[in-house]
Amino acid sequence: MATSPRTRLDPDARRAQLVELGRRMLSTRPLDTVAIDEIAAEAGISRGLLFHYFPTKRDYHLAVARAAAQDLLRRTDPDPSLDALSQLRASVEAFVDYVSENRDPYTAFIRGAAGGDPEARAVGDATREAFTQRVLARMGADRPSPRLRVAVRGWVAFTEEVTVDRMAGEALDRDELVALIVEALVTLVRMGGGELPGPA
Amino acid sequence: MATSPRTRLDPDARRAQLVELGRRMLSTRPLDTVAIDEIAAEAGISRGLLFHYFPTKRDYHLAVARAAAQDLLRRTDPDPSLDALSQLRASVEAFVDYVSENRDPYTAFIRGAAGGDPEARAVGDATREAFTQRVLARMGADRPSPRLRVAVRGWVAFTEEVTVDRMAGEALDRDELVALIVEALVTLVRMGGGELPGPA
Repeated sequence: MATSPRTRLDPDARRAQLVELGRRMLSTRPLDTVAIDEIAAEAGISRGLLFHYFPTKRDYHLAVARAAAQDLLRRTDPDPSLDALSQLRASVEAFVDYVSENRDPYTAFIRGAAGGDPEARAVGDATREAFTQRVLARMGADRPSPRLRVAVRGWVAFTEEVTVDRMAGEALDRDELVALIVEALVTLVRMGGGELPGPA
Repeated sequence: MATSPRTRLDPDARRAQLVELGRRMLSTRPLDTVAIDEIAAEAGISRGLLFHYFPTKRDYHLAVARAAAQDLLRRTDPDPSLDALSQLRASVEAFVDYVSENRDPYTAFIRGAAGGDPEARAVGDATREAFTQRVLARMGADRPSPRLRVAVRGWVAFTEEVTVDRMAGEALDRDELVALIVEALVTLVRMGGGELPGPA
């Protein structure tokens, strides 16, 4: 990732470099305390060039949040050759592992991308909704009842919370946590009037 | 709330006035776009006096977030004369009603008080943990298993999500939502190996 001041990158690569750098820097410090100058210096580019890509600090922060969300969704996309329950278990395992390895960026950008900023808040909402739709699609629930959709959406937040909270303290081990999350889904889907297809 | 520039308030009243003002202003706008000057002008005090109470913008934001969290916990504190399940239902009703009436401040300060700021993130975490401990206490679970504690903590996030998401769109009505949240708790507590005492 280290780039000398003279390295020339094409625009997409430069943008990706800046976003990745932001994910690392901003995950441990509030955005308010990070100067644009510092980011530019770290990337080995001028302040002007950074503003060419991201006109404001907020634009930059939003780009970092969106990239983090896309990365998470990609890494947790389940193997479609498995049955629905196995896909969901694999996806939960990938989620727990991802968050364990990226706790600070995760809490900073996906979960916590809020403050009073509606666009940042929308990144977190869209990510939770994408997970919700993915679960409903894997269940074959094309037209879920409002109750089922709400139950699954709530489960996504349940999953996020127990995974993040787990890292903070006293806890279940990774496999106990995955088992609890999968059981919670089975239970909440049933409560919502749906069913999770298991192995044939 | 409108205060003429010459009104003298004692320090606690002034602090409370500034915090309440912040809750209203910052709930609809990102913190970055709100100038300290603007807040001071709105309160009818000098910029210097505002900095006397809150040395930085971030201190001010944290004070607003903490006050919002305390207010929420106070309003959802259940009546101890009821049985455990009725207390929890009353508490869920109060939570749903509070968030319905205060969606923007709620999402801005309690749920979303994160960004990359560890202290702001701690406000949201402490609030969710306070709800978790309250539920466990009402269940009489003095020494909950890790599995039960995690299940209840996850339910707190479930509740938060379905209440906030509900406001955004297609949905259950208030009583259906309360019923779903209470059922989810009963179900998740059982899954966690606990039990919710119902009416005698």
